[in-house]
Amino acid sequence: MSRSPNVIYIGNKPPMNYVMALMQGLSMSESGEVVLKARGRAISRAVDVAEIARRRFMTDLQISKISIGTEELEMEEGGKKGVSTIEIVLTTSSKKAEK
Amino acid sequence: MSRSPNVIYIGNKPPMNYVMALMQGLSMSESGEVVLKARGRAISRAVDVAEIARRRFMTDLQISKISIGTEELEMEEGGKKGVSTIEIVLTTSSKKAEK
Repeated sequence: MSRSPNVIYIGNKPPMNYVMALMQGLSMSESGEVVLKARGRAISRAVDVAEIARRRFMTDLQISKISIGTEELEMEEGGKKGVSTIEIVLTTSSKKAEK
Repeated sequence: MSRSPNVIYIGNKPPMNYVMALMQGLSMSESGEVVLKARGRAISRAVDVAEIARRRFMTDLQISKISIGTEELEMEEGGKKGVSTIEIVLTTSSKKAEK
């Protein structure tokens, strides 16, 4: 996975860690856009992060797109396994308004 | 929560149970539309259900809308707690084509 400052990969840390990363990402993003990506059980946490950020910290944060999909993972014991993924695109209108 | 044949609430059962309910719901639905609803940790499972159904069983199944939100739950010990929710609207184009 390539690392972009505008993409935040959600793992097993507490949601607030990612909320902070999201707000930092938005402040650095020229476009005012940040993408949350998660797979498997972390999908629920990605939704938590978007909701906490939007409700508690940045009321102007908007969900501009949500997409789901499946990634094929190679198993150690051979064979493949499908893992669900989610991408949540968040934009802040205050950044747009500055332009 | 009101029960509609076109709404499937995702809980803690294995994903395949809900995939079956989804396919049955679609076959009964005149509009060819079914909504998956989940909250908290079941959100990841809702995405699994949509992906399994779409990839393995109904390749014409389309995700027409995904929305996320927060529900306020009353705690037994008093106070409120926010729980994240997801709604995935699925439509089958074969039903539409029949009209």
